[in-house]
Amino acid sequence: MAPTSSRPGRHAASRRAAVRGNPAHPPGEISPLTINRISVYLRSLRQLEAQGVARISSQQLARRFHLSSTQIRKDLALFGGFGVRGVGYDVARLAQQLTTLLHIDRIQRIVIVGMGNIGTALARFPAFNSGTFRVVAGFDTDPARIGREVGPVRILPMEDLETVVEATGARLAVLAVPAEAAVPVFRAIAATGIPSVLNFAPVTLPPVPGCRVKHVDLRIHLEELVFFAVASATAAPGEGV
Amino acid sequence: MAPTSSRPGRHAASRRAAVRGNPAHPPGEISPLTINRISVYLRSLRQLEAQGVARISSQQLARRFHLSSTQIRKDLALFGGFGVRGVGYDVARLAQQLTTLLHIDRIQRIVIVGMGNIGTALARFPAFNSGTFRVVAGFDTDPARIGREVGPVRILPMEDLETVVEATGARLAVLAVPAEAAVPVFRAIAATGIPSVLNFAPVTLPPVPGCRVKHVDLRIHLEELVFFAVASATAAPGEGV
Repeated sequence: MAPTSSRPGRHAASRRAAVRGNPAHPPGEISPLTINRISVYLRSLRQLEAQGVARISSQQLARRFHLSSTQIRKDLALFGGFGVRGVGYDVARLAQQLTTLLHIDRIQRIVIVGMGNIGTALARFPAFNSGTFRVVAGFDTDPARIGREVGPVRILPMEDLETVVEATGARLAVLAVPAEAAVPVFRAIAATGIPSVLNFAPVTLPPVPGCRVKHVDLRIHLEELVFFAVASATAAPGEGV
Repeated sequence: MAPTSSRPGRHAASRRAAVRGNPAHPPGEISPLTINRISVYLRSLRQLEAQGVARISSQQLARRFHLSSTQIRKDLALFGGFGVRGVGYDVARLAQQLTTLLHIDRIQRIVIVGMGNIGTALARFPAFNSGTFRVVAGFDTDPARIGREVGPVRILPMEDLETVVEATGARLAVLAVPAEAAVPVFRAIAATGIPSVLNFAPVTLPPVPGCRVKHVDLRIHLEELVFFAVASATAAPGEGV
């Protein structure tokens, strides 16, 4: 068990309850989109908590944060349901339950590999350095960058990757190197045993068992926006373009 | 018609052919995921072109870039099919056809609203400043930032947004302001007539007709990775963790 988890037994149990409690929904059936919505609900609940709201119905939650109340009920029911009919949800309690469900009730350490524009921005990014997440080190091959401090982290040489991952217990890596370097650097990250990589390099990475990759391809997002903007302008020539 | 398109007639025609050519697939049925895959194919083809490859089969393309050949054939068939059975695809020609299909055969101008860490990184990001895309201006409310140059752009006050959008013909905006400012700033962007927003603020934005939003929620990606890493470690305790 990794050093990032202080109470493995308890977490393993809550995990089983959450993911496997309902026999109709084995872990494989829970989609990333469902988990992404749980993150959104949690964020909304934390905001309500900060505003002193103690209870909320799915309808109020939906209206307030531009969500779907049917979807909220369906998603929460998937993990056992947490609301009381006619009473709504206890905001603080549901937030805590979702935090446990997402396994973000412990510190999750991140290494950033590739300290160019994107890597540097993410090292200083509040969302990667607050609550559960901590950037613990940056890595680069450029001697001019090595040794520098960026926000909370120091830039280290690639050779130190495995040692630092072991020493810090980092379980998340951000891959932010240029396209041509991405595949070998990805293999080096996977070889350290890190199970999760957030990839910003515009490259389809080869599958490596035991290492899950989430691609963030910003240019592809732009291309998608362009395509649909033109398509909808064509469909309704009076509007917009 | 926006100044970003120099030959509206031709583009409108190719657009109709591409999107509406097949009566079984009206524009509404083309999913963002399909368009994202078209972007990946195009990028792969451009790489092959640079390497001097003239022809390629869907199988070779799939093997080389970790894609699915069935999916490639299915996706391209959706837009009329471009290959010749037994001969494969003409790399340069298919790349040109996909470029036209995605409407990225003309310059697409981008404004970045919010010039903090992420906005600043994107202003300098090669993928946002090459080929079809150009960042033309950055905007911020912080007087200390206004007037500075970041990569190719100057940081301007928010009051100039509408004028600059009109003057440059920008049709894409990046929203990179803090969560608490995101909704009003998003409305200000949409009010300029910009039809496409790439949103980095961790907020669900209210729908505004005529303005499509693509959310990039990096923290939610991290939470997703954490969830599935723990879930798969639980499913197969011998591996990884």
